[in-house]
Amino acid sequence: MKFVTLDDGSRDGRLHIASRDGQRVVPADGARTLLAALETWDDHLATWQAQYDRLNDGDAGAAPFALETALAPLPRAWQWLDGSAFETHALLLQKAWGQPQVGLSERPLMYQGMSDRFLPPQSVARFPSAADGIDFEGEFGVILRDVPMGTPASLAARAIRLIVLINDWSLRALGPVEMATGFGWLQCKPACSMAPFAVTPDELGAAWHDARVCLPLRIDVNGQPFGRANGGEMKFGFHELIAHAAYSRDLPAGTILGSGTVANASYEDVGSSCIAERQAIELIAHGASRSPFLNSGDRVEMRASTADGVELFGPIDQSVEISAST
Amino acid sequence: MKFVTLDDGSRDGRLHIASRDGQRVVPADGARTLLAALETWDDHLATWQAQYDRLNDGDAGAAPFALETALAPLPRAWQWLDGSAFETHALLLQKAWGQPQVGLSERPLMYQGMSDRFLPPQSVARFPSAADGIDFEGEFGVILRDVPMGTPASLAARAIRLIVLINDWSLRALGPVEMATGFGWLQCKPACSMAPFAVTPDELGAAWHDARVCLPLRIDVNGQPFGRANGGEMKFGFHELIAHAAYSRDLPAGTILGSGTVANASYEDVGSSCIAERQAIELIAHGASRSPFLNSGDRVEMRASTADGVELFGPIDQSVEISAST
Repeated sequence: MKFVTLDDGSRDGRLHIASRDGQRVVPADGARTLLAALETWDDHLATWQAQYDRLNDGDAGAAPFALETALAPLPRAWQWLDGSAFETHALLLQKAWGQPQVGLSERPLMYQGMSDRFLPPQSVARFPSAADGIDFEGEFGVILRDVPMGTPASLAARAIRLIVLINDWSLRALGPVEMATGFGWLQCKPACSMAPFAVTPDELGAAWHDARVCLPLRIDVNGQPFGRANGGEMKFGFHELIAHAAYSRDLPAGTILGSGTVANASYEDVGSSCIAERQAIELIAHGASRSPFLNSGDRVEMRASTADGVELFGPIDQSVEISAST
Repeated sequence: MKFVTLDDGSRDGRLHIASRDGQRVVPADGARTLLAALETWDDHLATWQAQYDRLNDGDAGAAPFALETALAPLPRAWQWLDGSAFETHALLLQKAWGQPQVGLSERPLMYQGMSDRFLPPQSVARFPSAADGIDFEGEFGVILRDVPMGTPASLAARAIRLIVLINDWSLRALGPVEMATGFGWLQCKPACSMAPFAVTPDELGAAWHDARVCLPLRIDVNGQPFGRANGGEMKFGFHELIAHAAYSRDLPAGTILGSGTVANASYEDVGSSCIAERQAIELIAHGASRSPFLNSGDRVEMRASTADGVELFGPIDQSVEISAST
């Protein structure tokens, strides 16, 4: 199934079901918002499945989907936890920064980010200053049902309700400053963006394997190809990230868990999912990085398609704007 | 005014107004939950003030307040940001850990914590293992209205709607491990607890000064006095913490901002607000720390009273329980 949230003037928007091809939508029965849907999932699942089936059969009562009316599928959530599960990404940045080449340890890396707002797929992305090193991070994420504290990885995959595509906007100049304190990132991590469609794992078919999204993440910057890295190379599957997150806390329904920047060992062929990693590759190859961070007017697009050409999550297509205040 | 949220079986509870002495309560008109109240504050403020005045005049229709029915005043919120604004706390831990005695820099320390659950004032506090170094952190916090990105400190104090008393439970053995990654705390910071009453700043009278809570935070452990440190010694006022948090993001109504562990330069007289700091003092004085972290059955109480004896926030009174799962 495919869920999309349309702007109705409220903070949480109005939940809709979308057809598999993303062309038509109907308001979801039984839950006004995706957050409410996640808290009452089993009560309404059969209803939504019937709505989805009718949409795919060409439901005459459905409205055409217009991307500009879409909010993030989950415009705000109670929790956003972002992992860093791609070893190639870690190794490249360690090498570029002159750190020991240790890659990822057996303990997943994860931080708690802001969850009160996920930007719509086509909204302008506003930042206070280009001097902060504006970067994107393309990643896949999962949205969970309630997960009790202490849930082991072996039982965690079944808690995954939906899969999403996320741009985790980052302000790179602030990153090292905040990391050095040990308190982690705050100013460095403004609101993320989400592609419009949140999909159930079965929509991925064989591309959902071992709790990993085995699809290329297609990133274009200012209309030029930037990255095509595959999400399947996570060192830890999402089930292992869930178990890590739930060690000392219950995870509420609607928790969003991110994979971290998608990266592949074949980066010379597939490119990168953020500018910082591309800079690292340039630094290693040429002794200096060439690619600049973003500035006003720069455009970032992200997409992922299945083998049969379905654009699964719809596009993120945003432009950067510098603005001292909103 | 004084707000309290009573358990009605829902995740957000039912908002009530409490009398100044905390003895009587009535359901708040116009908003079912504190989160909804914070999003519609100005529409209902006069109504709540009238309810509060009637309560203090001895409203015959009010119910007696029973602490065991209280949830946290804000049982879940969209954002919880915790500062570390007491220089004595920083200096003591730096000295104990053999780090440079730099205290706090001009840049506030702050991390993003879990906001999806704040424990009720009398609930059991469950943790997976006593080996993780179970500790409390007594602190004051503020709850905000919407704050736009880029709001300067000079305009930020007016965004403070309510003041609360928080126990920021911490798992100390996990702290250094998570700090070393630069990603900040996650497993180390399970759900916090809140005292039952959230109060408007005017309730503090002269004790609300320069956006600081100038009151002693009374902490007892297993019935013995542990700390009486005053919240007024923050290096940064809450207005400065708000401006720091809002540098690259809007803060949503309901954001909770914490002071960090309350600590005073006169710690030999007033004690500490967490065990880790007391251990640091012992280490400095005697070459070894003596005070153990908490274990099953240990009891932690926190309170703060005004000069005229009003117990402003009501008590936190919790016991620790070790439980591999909830």
